[in-house]
Amino acid sequence: MKKLATGICLTMLLNVALGQEVTRPDTTRRTARMPNFRNQVVSPEIHPDKTVTFRLFAPEASSVEISGEWMPGFGARESLAKNDTGLWTITLGPLQPEFYGYSFFINGAKALDPSNAVIKRDGNRNDNVLFIKGDKSDLYAIKDVPHGVLSAVWYPSSVLGFQRRMNIYTPPGYEDSKEKYPVLYLLHGAGGDEEAWVELGRACQILDNLISQKKARPMIVVMTNGNPTQAAAPGYEPEINEQRIQAFGPGNMISGKFEESLVKDVVPYIEKHYRVISNRSARAVAGLSMGGFHTLNIITANPGMFDYAGVMSMGFINTKQFGGEDNRNAFEKQVDLLKASGIKLLWIGCGKEDFLYQSVTELRKIFDQHQLKYVYRESQGGHTWFNWRLYFSELAPLLFR
Amino acid sequence: MKKLATGICLTMLLNVALGQEVTRPDTTRRTARMPNFRNQVVSPEIHPDKTVTFRLFAPEASSVEISGEWMPGFGARESLAKNDTGLWTITLGPLQPEFYGYSFFINGAKALDPSNAVIKRDGNRNDNVLFIKGDKSDLYAIKDVPHGVLSAVWYPSSVLGFQRRMNIYTPPGYEDSKEKYPVLYLLHGAGGDEEAWVELGRACQILDNLISQKKARPMIVVMTNGNPTQAAAPGYEPEINEQRIQAFGPGNMISGKFEESLVKDVVPYIEKHYRVISNRSARAVAGLSMGGFHTLNIITANPGMFDYAGVMSMGFINTKQFGGEDNRNAFEKQVDLLKASGIKLLWIGCGKEDFLYQSVTELRKIFDQHQLKYVYRESQGGHTWFNWRLYFSELAPLLFR
Repeated sequence: MKKLATGICLTMLLNVALGQEVTRPDTTRRTARMPNFRNQVVSPEIHPDKTVTFRLFAPEASSVEISGEWMPGFGARESLAKNDTGLWTITLGPLQPEFYGYSFFINGAKALDPSNAVIKRDGNRNDNVLFIKGDKSDLYAIKDVPHGVLSAVWYPSSVLGFQRRMNIYTPPGYEDSKEKYPVLYLLHGAGGDEEAWVELGRACQILDNLISQKKARPMIVVMTNGNPTQAAAPGYEPEINEQRIQAFGPGNMISGKFEESLVKDVVPYIEKHYRVISNRSARAVAGLSMGGFHTLNIITANPGMFDYAGVMSMGFINTKQFGGEDNRNAFEKQVDLLKASGIKLLWIGCGKEDFLYQSVTELRKIFDQHQLKYVYRESQGGHTWFNWRLYFSELAPLLFR
Repeated sequence: MKKLATGICLTMLLNVALGQEVTRPDTTRRTARMPNFRNQVVSPEIHPDKTVTFRLFAPEASSVEISGEWMPGFGARESLAKNDTGLWTITLGPLQPEFYGYSFFINGAKALDPSNAVIKRDGNRNDNVLFIKGDKSDLYAIKDVPHGVLSAVWYPSSVLGFQRRMNIYTPPGYEDSKEKYPVLYLLHGAGGDEEAWVELGRACQILDNLISQKKARPMIVVMTNGNPTQAAAPGYEPEINEQRIQAFGPGNMISGKFEESLVKDVVPYIEKHYRVISNRSARAVAGLSMGGFHTLNIITANPGMFDYAGVMSMGFINTKQFGGEDNRNAFEKQVDLLKASGIKLLWIGCGKEDFLYQSVTELRKIFDQHQLKYVYRESQGGHTWFNWRLYFSELAPLLFR
């Protein structure tokens, strides 16, 4: 016991002596940071049977709930139970292997789990990460395989008139080779930004794993910011652009400016600065939801530029519905041009419960009428990252073949 | 009014229709994410006089407090006041320009501000970011200047026996030039990891700004993970390494393994994969606290390898105190070798209130006795990122001159 106490004391001393910032001590911090501290709160604790125990130390709270992405239905929460030391606990599951978000609610107000440092951001919302290992999440895990490099790069946009930030994945081996690589432009949905496919889509992990299993060709993946009024994700926006953020609104999504910028700014930047194969057979574009809308706009406006395209959870949307012009006829004409251009793979994925399911049916009808071939993947579930990670896992192996 | 309502409705519809994941609605989410929603909670709101209003919607809470890094003393918190709609509010300041962390406490338990998506992580602790612009924080801001590229790179460590993750900053222009660059190896403190200098140290912003003002030479900055049992920051650790994390303890900090790995694994990796000037005149190493300890070990064990070194908030620590060997005599011998090697710049920074101040005095005494020249910078304050950002801002311009 004395030895244990000495060990704890040494750890605490060293944590302070060798560099943790000295700030106000508080319980959440002490419990979260001191690895050997006896009162350490462990949360989440994943048990071998994939049940999970969540814990929060909150002696003065009168209610603590948890909401997790595995819970069915809207607004679902479960209540934790309090013991006599003020520790709230609940054990849930077993849970299916997945990459989940969750958060607590203390007296009804959202609070992240202070014992879990790993967070994912979806738009303006942060949640804690719960990663349940297993077959279905195997591709999303960081495994002991060769890893690609993820770079945050700023590029000048002549179309939008300001510098913008994008994330670029270069595959394992890129730095050591002289080879040229194909490029996938991977687009996020509304509310997202250039971090979405990295943080929520696990794009780097999925590709690292698929490439190491020789199931996908080594490729560069370019993850842009699809909001034409934004330069970058929250926290990275230059001061000068704050007025643009204020001006962000629905009109910008259907302005066509992002799509134009991708073609005129991003593709040339990538083809100049990276070792890439600069022709249609080595260019792919794919996106989810708003990014699927962007993808459709990009491939129909630029037939012959991309041989591969993926449209996830998005169908034909007549912009008339949103105060724009009736674009049905124009779209159909572009579909004919796309067909004439001989696109190699047009991949569509949608969940049976997706609220945009009907728009996907409409899109397929147009493609069928115009005899434009496509691969259709219908999954369970709806408009969720569960599906988008799955679709990306299935689409990536089909590219550049 | 009808037009406003239509606008709000359109925004909400588009947010859903064009790609936000459909999950349970909850108040925090609705208020945080819908830009035109009338009940939107804005927090923090920075006023022109640099006072700041913080707001949290928590109708069922009986107490909401805030703790911020600008507050003096340990454990300082201020109470927010509740109005009849359940919105808690406080206005604080005016605050000095700085890059601060803060968080709320709901009924005494920590909760991040759901209206503020920008978070910084210090070890296992997450806090919201509050950035007050002004003279003193000007170098920390993301400005409309050319930006370097930040890359997360995995490298094989032969010394430690596993792949490890590091962050590499390449300066603006690196991609477009054929020039070779000098390299700074920048080391974090205990509890930190390869993200610390990026997220908390604002190293990329400081260098972007100094370089654009021609106050620092364009340089590559390599930010490693200084915990020899870790492969990577939380969330990036491969599954295979979990046992190593469990084993993390004080012994690892003074094992010398990280220092050995930096010299044998990291420097050769960088000099092979990047366009760098591979000699002592273009190599610098600097670190804070534990990273200062590592820096001292690296330069004394490898005299002639680095012409520039920075030691922040760290002095001479006899490892005897922590159960290691008495290293005083050995250290003094290495100091003689370091002096003989002709190191160009040895920079020491420490705050007057730093709890390691005495160790810095001891270090300076040893250097003085052995006639090893150094630059000494004594600042106000203590063992904080306020000081480490400041020191980095002052040290970077002195490197590679």
